[in-house]
Amino acid sequence: MSEVMTKRATDYSQWYNDLVLKADLAEHSEVRGCMVIKPHGYAIWEKMQAALDGMFKATGHVNAYFPLFIPVSYFAKEASHVEGFAKECAVVTHYRLKTDPVKGIVVDPEAKLEEPLIIRPTSETIIWNTYRGWVKSYRDLPLLINQWANVVRWEMRTRLFLRTAEFLWQEGHTAHATKEEAVEETMRMLDVYATFAEEWLAMPVIKGVKTQSERFAGAEDTYCIEALMQDGKALQAGTSHFLGQNFAKAFDVLFTDKENKQSHVWATSWGVSTRLMGALIMTHSDDHGLVLPPKLAPVQVVIVPIAKNGDQLAAIDSYVAPMVSALRAKGITVKYDNDDKKKPGWKFAEYELKGYPVRIAVGPRDMENGTVEVARRDTLEKETLQAVDLADKVEHLLQAIQANLYQKALAMREAGTRAVDSYAEFKEVIEGGGFIYAHWDGTPETEEKVKQETKATIRCIPLNGDRTPGVCMVTGKPSAQRVIFARAY
Amino acid sequence: MSEVMTKRATDYSQWYNDLVLKADLAEHSEVRGCMVIKPHGYAIWEKMQAALDGMFKATGHVNAYFPLFIPVSYFAKEASHVEGFAKECAVVTHYRLKTDPVKGIVVDPEAKLEEPLIIRPTSETIIWNTYRGWVKSYRDLPLLINQWANVVRWEMRTRLFLRTAEFLWQEGHTAHATKEEAVEETMRMLDVYATFAEEWLAMPVIKGVKTQSERFAGAEDTYCIEALMQDGKALQAGTSHFLGQNFAKAFDVLFTDKENKQSHVWATSWGVSTRLMGALIMTHSDDHGLVLPPKLAPVQVVIVPIAKNGDQLAAIDSYVAPMVSALRAKGITVKYDNDDKKKPGWKFAEYELKGYPVRIAVGPRDMENGTVEVARRDTLEKETLQAVDLADKVEHLLQAIQANLYQKALAMREAGTRAVDSYAEFKEVIEGGGFIYAHWDGTPETEEKVKQETKATIRCIPLNGDRTPGVCMVTGKPSAQRVIFARAY
Repeated sequence: MSEVMTKRATDYSQWYNDLVLKADLAEHSEVRGCMVIKPHGYAIWEKMQAALDGMFKATGHVNAYFPLFIPVSYFAKEASHVEGFAKECAVVTHYRLKTDPVKGIVVDPEAKLEEPLIIRPTSETIIWNTYRGWVKSYRDLPLLINQWANVVRWEMRTRLFLRTAEFLWQEGHTAHATKEEAVEETMRMLDVYATFAEEWLAMPVIKGVKTQSERFAGAEDTYCIEALMQDGKALQAGTSHFLGQNFAKAFDVLFTDKENKQSHVWATSWGVSTRLMGALIMTHSDDHGLVLPPKLAPVQVVIVPIAKNGDQLAAIDSYVAPMVSALRAKGITVKYDNDDKKKPGWKFAEYELKGYPVRIAVGPRDMENGTVEVARRDTLEKETLQAVDLADKVEHLLQAIQANLYQKALAMREAGTRAVDSYAEFKEVIEGGGFIYAHWDGTPETEEKVKQETKATIRCIPLNGDRTPGVCMVTGKPSAQRVIFARAY
Repeated sequence: MSEVMTKRATDYSQWYNDLVLKADLAEHSEVRGCMVIKPHGYAIWEKMQAALDGMFKATGHVNAYFPLFIPVSYFAKEASHVEGFAKECAVVTHYRLKTDPVKGIVVDPEAKLEEPLIIRPTSETIIWNTYRGWVKSYRDLPLLINQWANVVRWEMRTRLFLRTAEFLWQEGHTAHATKEEAVEETMRMLDVYATFAEEWLAMPVIKGVKTQSERFAGAEDTYCIEALMQDGKALQAGTSHFLGQNFAKAFDVLFTDKENKQSHVWATSWGVSTRLMGALIMTHSDDHGLVLPPKLAPVQVVIVPIAKNGDQLAAIDSYVAPMVSALRAKGITVKYDNDDKKKPGWKFAEYELKGYPVRIAVGPRDMENGTVEVARRDTLEKETLQAVDLADKVEHLLQAIQANLYQKALAMREAGTRAVDSYAEFKEVIEGGGFIYAHWDGTPETEEKVKQETKATIRCIPLNGDRTPGVCMVTGKPSAQRVIFARAY
């Protein structure tokens, strides 16, 4: 609280780091690349988990838990998967330490594993190795299973929430009798993610399919939701993969169909992670700190009494009590902070920094007038309201804040979106960030050239975009539709 | 379903393994010592998590998340802790694999970590290393933090849920300004665990304190809840540790008190794990399969139609629909299983095996008579009830089942509890299992002798037991009160 936070306009990246630390969301641990998710950050993640988990269950999924460890040999079974994941990972090679008279505690060389184990970077291999035992006939399908877990990818340059060695996520892994069902599931979960992003995170997203070079290692098709951050960089917020029969073939998962014929099972996988915390922060927050959509705020309303002495405070306590009850009766989470060791000014700054959507201040004059002062975090506007029907008003206000945050983010994205036809213009425009709709000839070579020359990648081929054909901005070759380029997190 | 389950009387241990597998709770993975928690098992664990998490939050705790990896050097800082935990553990030594032309995928010797990392067996060290940065003054205390996480202890002989290399748990880690507050917290959480065991698991427990040799490595005092399983073996179901200033001293966590004096912080930690699944199974289940207390059953009521043809089924669908709505309106979870590919007899066996507390069958005659047939899983009794006010009746039945399971388990424990005064009698009685209250001279030597000679350990010194002094059954030396001996899981 003592030091001032860096402003977004000064250094966006530093602003982000400052905010994550000062709003008590997370911090770097002393363990390389790993973060500590602090209580305020974790409480927001719990709200995300609860919402997503409810949506998964409403679409027929159940949760399960698979081992943290994956034998190295499992990765070798799916050729493209091993290239994508098994290289930079945490490897367990021993299962015991011992005391050394000189060096203290050391690894016991006698306790070497026959086969090293990888800490899961993603669980397709161990799950499909397990599904082999679960699927015999078409009656066993579909399997609609999700797992909430920690995963590890050995990242060299880490950023809190956006890229860390260990992170938390959910990974859905489904098994189907037909290609059509698996594709349908892939799209269903993409829609679930898009709905969650828009309705809960208040973050507009574009649904699309990845190009071959951006595809998940082992997938036939990777679908994604892409969002635009305040600094004009794109962020992939969730992916849903159609895996074809790749993992079923690698792990011999066959089923007998109604005609008694054996076939390989069809697969999907889909995931979102604590990276969404980064997306949330960079979509809405400002130079005062975190801004939270009410639906993801651990506490939606904070009430701060402004009292000169104990008698006034006691009077305000009584004045506020029925308001608190009325708000809670509507399912609104409320904190009444009458801790007299901290000054109101300190509290205001603290709750602003931490993103509480609505702050209500109550002083002696409010009691005389039957009013309260209501401040909304998104616009920082204050107004004095009659206390009558306060709960109704606050309920509407929370809805208005949720809607406003989405509209603001949408307007920001629209303002940051351009269609560009020439590569010269593209090179100029990309310096200002944003989503650029441009024609591309469909080849990995052109995609790579653009990436090398401009640091922009194809975020996705949008599913609901303009399908007008054209010519590639780089090569002039035919293009089926515009794709979205951006520099990305 | 095809093979018959082993009976408890034949081989309790085999019955347990059969049940866990056949009721689809969990299975061994191909990864040594690690289990796969299957959807039905995980759904029960989720119910436990939700109940416990609510109780933790109601007592002022918040959740956070700390890294999976712990540097070896952290363990060396607390002498007794390293002895207890750092020896049998998973050690990460490398962070990259590479492709070898002959051997395929191998560990890259170039990518060796400077300091090996341990997969957390428990998180005191990494958490107290983090708390050092969070605690400056008495105003920062108490820290009341819990973590839901996976942990790894390299176990050689594993049993599903009871002892596995990787398991899921929660670990609370609190920091306090005074010894009194820390002791109070230790007892508060012990009470939370006891309440959870009794009210949710329907499992009576004895609260006690561990002897020095059974204490958590690094604790000043370990409190526990102990339960008695059907086979007469004890199971430690949860522990709450008063850690004194041990970890604060090891990790230099000091705070400035109101008098501006620096002191080390006082600590507690407390945890329960997926081991509770084993406790649940071994407390209530029978030769027909799993028996679940209604409060932890993922689905409390299953309704099975008994129809000869599609018309009858359609009629039953309509007859049942308002019952389903009425039950759900009371917050009761209901599954109406009108899948006509499976026969009612198969369904009955399946739901019995999986522990659904109440099964309702509806046939054509029921529709004529305005009745349903209600079967309760705990007693296997069936009765025909008028469908009028069915939801009320079922609500009461679920409460009755919950209460009955507790009473049955309590009666079983009481029947399995003996007070013994001579070591000769002890040696005889212990062969029959159960809790044995006996006098002990308070020395580790006598405790060890009993353990070597009878395989019985002191489960705890009960907190609420008879405090009459006596003489040690082994040495004849004075004893302050009886302690509880048992053979244990």
